[in-house]
Parts: sequence; structure tokens; C-alpha cells
Amino acid sequence: MAEQVTGDTSPSAKATTKATLVDAGTQLILEQGYHHTGIQDVLQTAGVPKGSFYYYFPSKEAFGLEVIAQFAAAYLARLEQYLGDTTASPLTRLRRHHEALLARFERRGCRGGCLIGNLSQELADQSPRLRAQLDTVLTSWRARYAQLFREAQAVGELRADLDPEALADFYLSSFEGALLRAKVSKSPQPLRLFLAMMFDGILQGHTARA
Amino acid sequence: MAEQVTGDTSPSAKATTKATLVDAGTQLILEQGYHHTGIQDVLQTAGVPKGSFYYYFPSKEAFGLEVIAQFAAAYLARLEQYLGDTTASPLTRLRRHHEALLARFERRGCRGGCLIGNLSQELADQSPRLRAQLDTVLTSWRARYAQLFREAQAVGELRADLDPEALADFYLSSFEGALLRAKVSKSPQPLRLFLAMMFDGILQGHTARA
Repeated sequence: MAEQVTGDTSPSAKATTKATLVDAGTQLILEQGYHHTGIQDVLQTAGVPKGSFYYYFPSKEAFGLEVIAQFAAAYLARLEQYLGDTTASPLTRLRRHHEALLARFERRGCRGGCLIGNLSQELADQSPRLRAQLDTVLTSWRARYAQLFREAQAVGELRADLDPEALADFYLSSFEGALLRAKVSKSPQPLRLFLAMMFDGILQGHTARA
Repeated sequence: MAEQVTGDTSPSAKATTKATLVDAGTQLILEQGYHHTGIQDVLQTAGVPKGSFYYYFPSKEAFGLEVIAQFAAAYLARLEQYLGDTTASPLTRLRRHHEALLARFERRGCRGGCLIGNLSQELADQSPRLRAQLDTVLTSWRARYAQLFREAQAVGELRADLDPEALADFYLSSFEGALLRAKVSKSPQPLRLFLAMMFDGILQGHTARA
């Protein structure tokens, strides 16, 4: 199968193999980190013959950029499923999204976490190009949360004097921090606490008793 | 110098070389991460002859445990300088501590971040021993913050009905998240926002306008 794919260099076969490599890379990098994931591991997991990596990607960094781009696109689509569901109130949608994330994280044994958060931690000082792309992804998430907070203000669900951008920034950073803590403590508790502090307190304008 | 140190195998010389290796490792791991830091890099940075690493440490993991232990001890001592200064109110002490961290992080060009947060992200799924030690360190910091919050409640600076442990957990996770975001955005702004949201809002019982 893999032999066929690399033997067949038509544009569609090339795109399929490239996508297979990116999918395999995403899983490995999520589990092991970027530096710890070798190109040979990716090829082996994807079932693609050794030596063909550079036929698809000019460098490991270019591969990393592709992994980030595809993960971010898939994440935004899933985010939109929740945040675009106008049958629920804005804050209810956001809470449901993060409750679904928490449930998935727990099912996976509190492993992996957020690929973007993980790579930000690992690569922010290592690669200017990867750092810039990671920052762009996080900024796009913040913008989506800020838009939701403005919706919540419009329907009177969030205090009108709060700054949606600042709140979105704090929300995103705190979520990434809670996920990091959940991953290292191998417990969903820090994420549950994040949800309680945010939705039962901060977004209601006061400090929750937790 | 390095030749002398390894030539001299007295207990004190051995301890000195070991400390030099741990110091060099701490800086390299803070900049590059654990997996990306090779044992040869550590030896070269420390000016210790090649091949002598395993004379001092049975494995890279054992070295990692030592790096974490020494960093945590140094950090707790610095934390205590601030939090133990009873000439200021409890929350003032905590704010000063994190403002000092922010200033140091900014002076270093928003690089590095928190060694414990970085390694938690990188190693939580990689090494059970390193994960357990990182979790222990974070738990000790949370306990110290919780103690401070209890002090703040005792002097009426923090609402008595808030749970000091939960608040300390949320504070610590959110700080680590803000630091991650500051590192990837190469800006101190997420840390400034963290301080404003916490000290001008959440710890006062309400949500800050940021």
C-alpha cells in the first residue's frame, strides 16, 4: 500500500501520502513532543517507506508548520460546532465546548493535552517560524472567544463593562495552564476547577467559592 | 580546571563537579527542553571532560530529577523571601513576588519561562518518575500559596468564604498558562493581564475590568 502510494506520484496520491504523514506526525508529536519525534518514527507509523520524507516536506520545520496548520483548522471547525450553535446561550456554548474537551482528555487517560500549548512551550525559543505560527493560532482562538463574549454582552449574559479581548486572553491562558496541570497531575480536577472558577464566578462578575 | 576536578575524586571535588553539571543542565534545559539537551552539551557547557557524566549520574533521568530538585529548592527559597516578608500584607507579598518574576522574564527577552512548567508539558507522558517529581513540586507551590491565602483571610484581606486550596490551585495553573502565552507571544502582556485579573479582581472577590 505504502509502496504503491510513493510509486504513484500523481497529485492526488502525493496529497494522500502527505496527509497520512501529517496525521501520523500529529499523534506522535502530541504524545512525545516535536524534538523527540523522529522523521523515521513518522514514516514508520504512517507506513510510508523510509527515505521519502523529503519528497513531501523540505524540512522537519516545514512538516511542523503543516502539522500545526492542520491541527488548528480541525480544532477551529470543532470549536465552531459548539460556538456556532445558537440554540444555546453564548456562555453555555463555550462551557459545553470545554466540558467536551475535558471528557475527551479524561477518556484518553489525561495524556497529550493541547498540541498548540505543548509546542508553544517546547518551541517558542527554538524556531522563530514555528513560534510565530503558534502565536497566530492562539491569537485566532482568543479572537473567537472575544467574539463570543461580545455576543454574551449583547444578550445581557456578561457584564457590559468587561473587556471581551482581555477576558478572552485570560480565559485562554488559564485554560492552557489548567490543561498543563491536569496533564502532569494525571487528573481532570484542575480543568474542573477552571470551569467552576470561570463559569460559576469570573464570567458572572464575582469570585466563585469553587 | 575541569581536568583537575575530575582528576580529584575527593567527596568535595565530586560534589562541586556534580553541582556544576546540574547548573549547566538547568540553563540548557530551560532554553532547549529536556530531550533536546544532550549529555555532551551539558558536559561541554560545564567544562567537564567528555565521558565522565555517568560517573556522577546513573542516567539522564537521574540527572533530570536532580535538576528539578535543585531548581525547586532555589525557587522555594526565593519565594520565601517574598512571602515571608511580614512587613507587607499577604496579598501584597504575593503580588510583589510575581511582579519580580515578570520583570526578570522581561529582562531575559521573554525566553525560558518556568522550568517546572516547561518540563511538565514535555515529560508528563514520557517518564513516570519525572512526572511524579514535577507534580510534587507544583503541589508544594500550591500549598505555599494556600497558606498565604489563609493568612490573607485571617487579616481580612481575602473573603473568608473562598477556599484557599482551590484558589491557590487556580492561581498557580493560570500563572503557568500566562507564562506559556507570554513566552510564545514574546510579550509580558499576558503576565500583566494575569496580575491585573487576579489582584485587582478575583482576589478582591469580583471580576476586574482588566
